[in-house]
Amino acid sequence: MSFLQVKPGTLLSPTPVVMVSCGMDEHINIMTAAWVGTVNSTPPMVSVSIRPNRWSYGLVHRSGEFVLNLVSRELAQKTDYCGVKSGRDINKWEACGFTPHKVSALTYAPAIAQAPAFLACKVVSEQDLGSHIMFIGEIVDIGLQEHLWEDGGKIDLKKADLVAYCHGEYVPLEEPMGFFGYSVAKPDVLERRMREMRG
Amino acid sequence: MSFLQVKPGTLLSPTPVVMVSCGMDEHINIMTAAWVGTVNSTPPMVSVSIRPNRWSYGLVHRSGEFVLNLVSRELAQKTDYCGVKSGRDINKWEACGFTPHKVSALTYAPAIAQAPAFLACKVVSEQDLGSHIMFIGEIVDIGLQEHLWEDGGKIDLKKADLVAYCHGEYVPLEEPMGFFGYSVAKPDVLERRMREMRG
Repeated sequence: MSFLQVKPGTLLSPTPVVMVSCGMDEHINIMTAAWVGTVNSTPPMVSVSIRPNRWSYGLVHRSGEFVLNLVSRELAQKTDYCGVKSGRDINKWEACGFTPHKVSALTYAPAIAQAPAFLACKVVSEQDLGSHIMFIGEIVDIGLQEHLWEDGGKIDLKKADLVAYCHGEYVPLEEPMGFFGYSVAKPDVLERRMREMRG
Repeated sequence: MSFLQVKPGTLLSPTPVVMVSCGMDEHINIMTAAWVGTVNSTPPMVSVSIRPNRWSYGLVHRSGEFVLNLVSRELAQKTDYCGVKSGRDINKWEACGFTPHKVSALTYAPAIAQAPAFLACKVVSEQDLGSHIMFIGEIVDIGLQEHLWEDGGKIDLKKADLVAYCHGEYVPLEEPMGFFGYSVAKPDVLERRMREMRG
Protein backbone atom coordinates (compact mmCIF):
# COMPACT_ATOMS: atom_id res chain seq x y z
CA MET A 1 0.00 0.00 0.00
CA SER A 2 1.17 3.53 -0.53
CA PHE A 3 -0.33 6.94 0.19
CA LEU A 4 -1.19 9.58 -2.37
CA GLN A 5 -1.33 13.08 -0.98
CA VAL A 6 -4.35 15.30 -1.37
CA LYS A 7 -4.98 18.94 -0.54
CA PRO A 8 -5.84 19.39 3.16
CA GLY A 9 -9.62 19.30 3.66
CA THR A 10 -12.40 18.09 5.91
CA LEU A 11 -11.96 14.40 5.21
CA LEU A 12 -12.49 12.99 8.72
CA SER A 13 -15.03 10.18 8.21
CA PRO A 14 -17.48 8.99 9.28
CA THR A 15 -18.82 11.94 11.25
CA PRO A 16 -22.12 12.25 13.09
CA VAL A 17 -24.95 14.06 11.36
CA VAL A 18 -27.55 15.72 13.55
CA MET A 19 -30.38 18.21 13.33
CA VAL A 20 -29.59 21.18 15.54
CA SER A 21 -32.75 22.78 16.91
CA CYS A 22 -32.58 26.22 18.45
CA GLY A 23 -34.69 29.25 19.26
CA MET A 24 -34.84 32.80 20.57
CA ASP A 25 -37.90 34.85 21.46
CA GLU A 26 -40.64 33.83 19.02
CA HIS A 27 -38.33 32.11 16.51
CA ILE A 28 -37.37 28.46 16.40
CA ASN A 29 -35.31 26.80 13.69
CA ILE A 30 -33.59 23.58 12.64
CA MET A 31 -30.28 23.25 10.84
CA THR A 32 -28.23 20.19 9.97
CA ALA A 33 -24.66 19.79 11.16
CA ALA A 34 -21.94 17.22 10.60
CA TRP A 35 -19.20 19.35 12.15
CA VAL A 36 -20.20 18.16 15.60
CA GLY A 37 -18.50 15.87 18.12
CA THR A 38 -18.07 14.84 21.72
CA VAL A 39 -15.27 16.86 23.35
CA ASN A 40 -15.47 15.96 27.05
CA SER A 41 -16.83 13.16 29.23
CA THR A 42 -17.15 14.77 32.69
CA PRO A 43 -19.05 17.01 32.43
CA PRO A 44 -20.39 15.73 29.09
CA MET A 45 -19.76 18.30 26.37
CA VAL A 46 -20.10 18.54 22.59
CA SER A 47 -18.83 20.91 19.95
CA VAL A 48 -20.93 22.15 17.06
CA SER A 49 -19.53 24.45 14.39
CA ILE A 50 -21.85 26.84 12.55
CA ARG A 51 -21.14 29.35 9.78
CA PRO A 52 -21.87 32.86 11.13
CA ASN A 53 -24.13 33.72 8.18
CA ARG A 54 -26.53 30.89 9.04
CA TRP A 55 -29.76 32.00 10.65
CA SER A 56 -29.28 29.46 13.41
CA TYR A 57 -25.96 31.05 14.37
CA GLY A 58 -27.69 34.12 15.78
CA LEU A 59 -30.32 32.04 17.57
CA VAL A 60 -27.69 29.91 19.34
CA HIS A 61 -25.44 32.91 19.99
CA ARG A 62 -28.22 34.96 21.60
CA SER A 63 -30.04 32.18 23.49
CA GLY A 64 -26.94 30.29 24.64
CA GLU A 65 -28.77 27.02 23.94
CA PHE A 66 -29.05 24.31 21.30
CA VAL A 67 -30.33 20.77 20.98
CA LEU A 68 -28.68 17.98 18.97
CA ASN A 69 -31.32 15.65 17.53
CA LEU A 70 -29.98 12.27 16.37
CA VAL A 71 -30.90 11.12 12.88
CA SER A 72 -32.42 7.77 11.94
CA ARG A 73 -32.56 6.32 8.42
CA GLU A 74 -36.22 7.34 8.33
CA LEU A 75 -35.28 11.00 8.98
CA ALA A 76 -32.30 11.21 6.60
CA GLN A 77 -34.15 12.90 3.75
CA LYS A 78 -35.69 15.54 6.04
CA THR A 79 -32.28 16.04 7.64
CA ASP A 80 -30.80 16.75 4.22
CA TYR A 81 -33.66 19.18 3.54
CA CYS A 82 -32.92 21.02 6.81
CA GLY A 83 -29.30 21.27 5.65
CA VAL A 84 -29.98 22.90 2.28
CA LYS A 85 -32.89 25.23 3.13
CA SER A 86 -32.72 28.35 5.31
CA GLY A 87 -35.08 29.13 8.16
CA ARG A 88 -35.06 32.73 6.90
CA ASP A 89 -37.11 31.57 3.90
CA ILE A 90 -39.26 28.72 5.17
CA ASN A 91 -40.56 27.20 8.38
CA LYS A 92 -38.74 23.87 8.42
CA TRP A 93 -40.83 22.55 11.30
CA GLU A 94 -43.95 22.83 9.16
CA ALA A 95 -42.22 21.75 5.95
CA CYS A 96 -40.95 18.54 7.61
CA GLY A 97 -43.97 17.84 9.79
CA PHE A 98 -41.82 18.19 12.91
CA THR A 99 -43.24 19.10 16.33
CA PRO A 100 -41.24 21.15 18.86
CA HIS A 101 -40.75 19.26 22.12
CA LYS A 102 -40.29 21.50 25.16
CA VAL A 103 -37.05 20.67 26.99
CA SER A 104 -37.46 21.42 30.68
CA ALA A 105 -33.78 22.30 31.20
CA LEU A 106 -33.79 24.95 28.43
CA THR A 107 -35.63 28.24 27.97
CA TYR A 108 -35.74 28.70 24.20
CA ALA A 109 -34.48 25.71 22.21
CA PRO A 110 -36.97 22.87 21.67
CA ALA A 111 -36.08 19.30 20.71
CA ILE A 112 -37.65 17.62 17.66
CA ALA A 113 -40.40 15.30 18.94
CA GLN A 114 -39.87 12.91 15.99
CA ALA A 115 -36.13 12.35 16.59
CA PRO A 116 -35.02 9.04 18.15
CA ALA A 117 -33.02 10.92 20.79
CA PHE A 118 -31.95 14.44 21.70
CA LEU A 119 -29.08 16.04 23.64
CA ALA A 120 -30.01 19.43 25.13
CA CYS A 121 -26.99 21.73 25.56
CA LYS A 122 -26.09 25.04 27.18
CA VAL A 123 -23.32 27.03 25.49
CA VAL A 124 -20.16 27.34 27.58
CA SER A 125 -17.93 28.96 24.96
CA GLU A 126 -17.86 30.25 21.41
CA GLN A 127 -14.76 30.52 19.26
CA ASP A 128 -14.22 31.89 15.76
CA LEU A 129 -12.07 29.40 13.82
CA GLY A 130 -12.32 30.96 10.35
CA SER A 131 -15.23 29.77 8.25
CA HIS A 132 -17.12 28.47 11.29
CA ILE A 133 -17.88 29.48 14.86
CA MET A 134 -17.31 26.55 17.20
CA PHE A 135 -19.71 26.37 20.12
CA ILE A 136 -18.87 24.16 23.08
CA GLY A 137 -22.03 23.05 24.85
CA GLU A 138 -22.55 21.18 28.08
CA ILE A 139 -25.16 18.45 27.77
CA VAL A 140 -27.77 19.19 30.45
CA ASP A 141 -30.57 16.85 29.44
CA ILE A 142 -31.01 13.79 27.23
CA GLY A 143 -34.21 12.24 25.93
CA LEU A 144 -34.57 8.86 24.23
CA GLN A 145 -37.69 7.41 22.66
CA GLU A 146 -39.30 4.66 24.71
CA HIS A 147 -38.67 1.98 22.09
CA LEU A 148 -34.88 2.39 22.55
CA TRP A 149 -35.07 1.13 26.13
CA GLU A 150 -34.60 -2.49 27.01
CA ASP A 151 -35.92 -4.18 30.13
CA GLY A 152 -33.62 -3.34 33.01
CA GLY A 153 -33.08 0.26 31.90
CA LYS A 154 -30.37 -0.41 29.30
CA ILE A 155 -30.34 1.64 26.12
CA ASP A 156 -30.26 -0.19 22.77
CA LEU A 157 -29.15 2.45 20.27
CA LYS A 158 -29.21 -0.12 17.44
CA LYS A 159 -32.99 0.28 17.45
CA ALA A 160 -32.52 3.96 16.57
CA ASP A 161 -31.16 2.91 13.13
CA LEU A 162 -28.80 5.88 13.09
CA VAL A 163 -27.11 7.43 10.07
CA ALA A 164 -23.53 8.74 9.73
CA TYR A 165 -22.13 11.29 7.30
CA CYS A 166 -19.23 10.26 5.14
CA HIS A 167 -17.57 12.55 2.58
CA GLY A 168 -20.83 14.19 1.51
CA GLU A 169 -23.06 11.13 1.82
CA TYR A 170 -25.60 9.84 4.35
CA VAL A 171 -24.69 6.32 5.38
CA PRO A 172 -26.69 3.95 7.62
CA LEU A 173 -24.93 1.63 10.05
CA GLU A 174 -24.47 -2.12 9.84
CA GLU A 175 -24.68 -4.42 12.84
CA PRO A 176 -21.95 -3.71 15.41
CA MET A 177 -18.81 -5.85 15.05
CA GLY A 178 -17.23 -5.40 18.48
CA PHE A 179 -17.44 -3.63 21.81
CA PHE A 180 -14.88 -1.46 23.61
CA GLY A 181 -12.31 -3.91 24.99
CA TYR A 182 -13.25 -6.84 22.74
CA SER A 183 -9.68 -7.20 21.48
CA VAL A 184 -8.48 -8.22 24.95
CA ALA A 185 -11.63 -9.91 26.38
CA LYS A 186 -11.35 -13.43 27.78
CA PRO A 187 -13.04 -16.09 25.58
CA ASP A 188 -16.10 -16.56 27.85
CA VAL A 189 -16.63 -12.80 28.26
CA LEU A 190 -16.12 -12.27 24.53
CA GLU A 191 -18.72 -14.88 23.62
CA ARG A 192 -21.33 -13.56 26.07
CA ARG A 193 -20.83 -9.90 25.20
CA MET A 194 -20.84 -10.51 21.43
CA ARG A 195 -24.10 -12.45 21.79
CA GLU A 196 -25.64 -9.64 23.88
CA MET A 197 -24.40 -7.05 21.40
CA ARG A 198 -26.04 -8.76 18.46
CA GLY A 199 -29.17 -9.81 20.35
CA MET B 1 -43.58 8.38 20.46
CA SER B 2 -42.49 9.88 23.73
CA PHE B 3 -39.13 10.65 25.29
CA LEU B 4 -37.74 9.14 28.48
CA GLN B 5 -35.10 11.23 30.15
CA VAL B 6 -31.67 9.88 31.01
CA LYS B 7 -28.77 11.33 32.96
CA PRO B 8 -26.65 13.66 30.76
CA GLY B 9 -23.78 11.73 29.17
CA THR B 10 -21.73 11.30 26.03
CA LEU B 11 -24.49 9.83 23.91
CA LEU B 12 -23.80 11.60 20.60
CA SER B 13 -23.78 8.77 18.03
CA PRO B 14 -22.37 7.67 15.71
CA THR B 15 -18.98 9.29 16.21
CA PRO B 16 -15.78 8.76 14.26
CA VAL B 17 -13.20 6.39 15.69
CA VAL B 18 -9.58 6.99 14.74
CA MET B 19 -6.10 5.95 15.75
CA VAL B 20 -4.17 9.04 16.85
CA SER B 21 -0.46 8.67 16.15
CA CYS B 22 1.99 11.03 17.78
CA GLY B 23 5.60 11.37 18.80
CA MET B 24 8.27 13.42 20.55
CA ASP B 25 12.04 12.93 20.52
CA GLU B 26 12.64 9.17 20.35
CA HIS B 27 9.09 8.14 21.36
CA ILE B 28 6.17 7.42 19.07
CA ASN B 29 2.78 6.14 20.17
CA ILE B 30 -0.74 5.32 19.02
CA MET B 31 -3.98 5.89 20.94
CA THR B 32 -7.58 5.45 19.92
CA ALA B 33 -10.04 8.33 20.07
CA ALA B 34 -13.74 8.70 19.44
CA TRP B 35 -13.96 12.18 20.97
CA VAL B 36 -12.83 13.70 17.68
CA GLY B 37 -14.61 15.79 15.07
CA THR B 38 -14.36 18.32 12.29
CA VAL B 39 -14.67 21.86 13.69
CA ASN B 40 -13.83 24.15 10.76
CA SER B 41 -13.81 23.99 6.95
CA THR B 42 -11.48 26.84 5.93
CA PRO B 43 -8.83 26.26 7.10
CA PRO B 44 -9.72 22.60 7.73
CA MET B 45 -9.54 21.84 11.46
CA VAL B 46 -10.38 18.98 13.78
CA SER B 47 -10.75 18.59 17.52
CA VAL B 48 -9.42 15.65 19.47
CA SER B 49 -9.93 15.29 23.22
CA ILE B 50 -7.41 13.36 25.30
CA ARG B 51 -7.32 12.60 29.03
CA PRO B 52 -4.24 14.32 30.54
CA ASN B 53 -3.04 11.09 32.19
CA ARG B 54 -2.72 9.36 28.82
CA TRP B 55 0.86 8.98 27.62
CA SER B 56 -0.12 10.42 24.25
CA TYR B 57 -1.30 13.63 25.92
CA GLY B 58 2.28 14.66 26.74
CA LEU B 59 3.54 13.69 23.29
CA VAL B 60 0.91 15.84 21.54
CA HIS B 61 1.28 18.67 24.05
CA ARG B 62 5.06 18.86 23.67
CA SER B 63 5.35 18.22 19.92
CA GLY B 64 2.32 20.28 18.86
CA GLU B 65 1.48 17.59 16.31
CA PHE B 66 -0.80 14.59 15.83
CA VAL B 67 -2.09 12.42 13.03
CA LEU B 68 -5.62 11.01 12.75
CA ASN B 69 -5.56 7.61 11.06
CA LEU B 70 -8.94 6.45 9.73
CA VAL B 71 -10.12 2.96 10.69
CA SER B 72 -11.31 0.25 8.31
CA ARG B 73 -13.22 -2.88 9.34
CA GLU B 74 -9.97 -4.79 8.94
CA LEU B 75 -8.27 -2.54 11.51
CA ALA B 76 -11.09 -2.42 14.08
CA GLN B 77 -9.65 -5.04 16.42
CA LYS B 78 -6.19 -3.42 16.45
CA THR B 79 -7.87 -0.05 16.98
CA ASP B 80 -9.64 -1.41 20.03
CA TYR B 81 -6.32 -2.81 21.28
CA CYS B 82 -4.70 0.64 20.89
CA GLY B 83 -7.59 2.04 22.95
CA VAL B 84 -7.20 -0.28 25.94
CA LYS B 85 -3.40 -0.63 26.18
CA SER B 86 -0.95 2.10 27.20
CA GLY B 87 2.19 3.01 25.28
CA ARG B 88 3.91 3.31 28.66
CA ASP B 89 3.71 -0.50 28.93
CA ILE B 90 4.01 -1.80 25.40
CA ASN B 91 5.11 -0.75 21.94
CA LYS B 92 1.78 -0.72 20.10
CA TRP B 93 3.48 -0.32 16.71
CA GLU B 94 5.22 -3.67 17.17
CA ALA B 95 2.26 -5.35 18.89
CA CYS B 96 -0.05 -4.42 15.98
CA GLY B 97 2.46 -4.86 13.17
CA PHE B 98 2.12 -1.20 12.23
CA THR B 99 4.81 0.74 10.37
CA PRO B 100 5.42 4.46 11.01
CA HIS B 101 4.99 6.50 7.82
CA LYS B 102 6.99 9.76 7.77
CA VAL B 103 4.71 12.75 7.14
CA SER B 104 6.68 15.44 5.33
CA ALA B 105 4.67 18.32 6.86
CA LEU B 106 5.38 17.18 10.44
CA THR B 107 8.55 16.84 12.51
CA TYR B 108 7.67 14.17 15.09
CA ALA B 109 4.30 12.47 14.52
CA PRO B 110 4.25 9.64 11.97
CA ALA B 111 1.14 8.29 10.23
CA ILE B 112 0.28 4.57 10.33
CA ALA B 113 1.32 3.08 6.97
CA GLN B 114 -1.45 0.45 7.19
CA ALA B 115 -4.33 2.96 7.63
CA PRO B 116 -6.62 3.65 4.66
CA ALA B 117 -6.09 7.40 5.09
CA PHE B 118 -4.47 9.87 7.45
CA LEU B 119 -4.97 13.53 8.39
CA ALA B 120 -1.78 15.19 9.67
CA CYS B 121 -2.46 18.07 12.07
CA LYS B 122 -0.61 20.90 13.79
CA VAL B 123 -2.00 21.97 17.16
CA VAL B 124 -3.44 25.49 17.17
CA SER B 125 -4.96 25.46 20.66
CA GLU B 126 -5.39 23.35 23.76
CA GLN B 127 -8.21 23.73 26.26
CA ASP B 128 -8.91 21.95 29.55
CA LEU B 129 -12.61 21.00 29.61
CA GLY B 130 -12.64 18.86 32.74
CA SER B 131 -11.90 15.17 32.20
CA HIS B 132 -10.30 15.83 28.81
CA ILE B 133 -7.97 18.31 27.15
CA MET B 134 -9.38 19.39 23.79
CA PHE B 135 -6.78 20.00 21.10
CA ILE B 136 -7.75 21.94 17.99
CA GLY B 137 -5.53 20.96 15.08
CA GLU B 138 -5.20 22.38 11.61
CA ILE B 139 -5.03 19.69 8.94
CA VAL B 140 -1.80 20.33 7.02
CA ASP B 141 -1.49 17.14 5.00
CA ILE B 142 -3.73 14.25 3.97
CA GLY B 143 -2.75 10.87 2.56
CA LEU B 144 -5.06 8.29 1.01
CA GLN B 145 -4.16 4.79 -0.12
CA GLU B 146 -3.97 4.41 -3.88
CA HIS B 147 -6.90 1.99 -4.03
CA LEU B 148 -9.27 4.74 -2.77
CA TRP B 149 -8.72 6.82 -5.91
CA GLU B 150 -10.93 6.52 -8.92
CA ASP B 151 -9.96 7.46 -12.46
CA GLY B 152 -10.21 11.21 -12.81
CA GLY B 153 -8.84 11.93 -9.35
CA LYS B 154 -12.07 11.41 -7.41
CA ILE B 155 -11.89 9.79 -3.98
CA ASP B 156 -14.11 6.79 -3.27
CA LEU B 157 -14.17 6.51 0.53
CA LYS B 158 -16.60 3.56 0.33
CA LYS B 159 -13.59 1.45 -0.64
CA ALA B 160 -12.01 2.30 2.73
CA ASP B 161 -14.75 0.26 4.48
CA LEU B 162 -14.72 2.65 7.45
CA VAL B 163 -16.01 1.98 10.93
CA ALA B 164 -17.96 4.30 13.26
CA TYR B 165 -18.25 4.22 17.05
CA CYS B 166 -21.68 4.03 18.55
CA HIS B 167 -22.36 3.92 22.29
CA GLY B 168 -19.36 1.73 23.08
CA GLU B 169 -19.45 -0.39 19.93
CA TYR B 170 -17.54 -0.49 16.64
CA VAL B 171 -19.98 -0.36 13.74
CA PRO B 172 -19.19 -0.74 10.02
CA LEU B 173 -21.08 1.33 7.45
CA GLU B 174 -23.73 0.20 4.99
CA GLU B 175 -23.97 1.49 1.44
CA PRO B 176 -24.69 5.24 1.32
CA MET B 177 -28.39 6.16 0.99
CA GLY B 178 -28.16 9.74 -0.24
CA PHE B 179 -25.85 12.63 -1.01
CA PHE B 180 -25.83 16.19 0.34
CA GLY B 181 -28.72 17.94 -1.45
CA TYR B 182 -30.55 14.75 -2.54
CA SER B 183 -33.76 15.85 -0.88
CA VAL B 184 -34.13 18.77 -3.31
CA ALA B 185 -32.37 17.36 -6.42
CA LYS B 186 -34.22 17.38 -9.74
CA PRO B 187 -35.31 13.88 -10.89
CA ASP B 188 -32.63 13.52 -13.60
CA VAL B 189 -29.85 14.76 -11.31
CA LEU B 190 -31.11 12.54 -8.49
CA GLU B 191 -31.08 9.45 -10.70
CA ARG B 192 -27.60 10.11 -12.07
CA ARG B 193 -26.04 10.99 -8.73
CA MET B 194 -27.62 8.04 -6.90
CA ARG B 195 -26.28 5.72 -9.59
CA GLU B 196 -22.79 7.23 -9.33
CA MET B 197 -22.93 7.05 -5.53
CA ARG B 198 -23.73 3.33 -5.55
CA GLY B 199 -21.46 2.49 -8.49
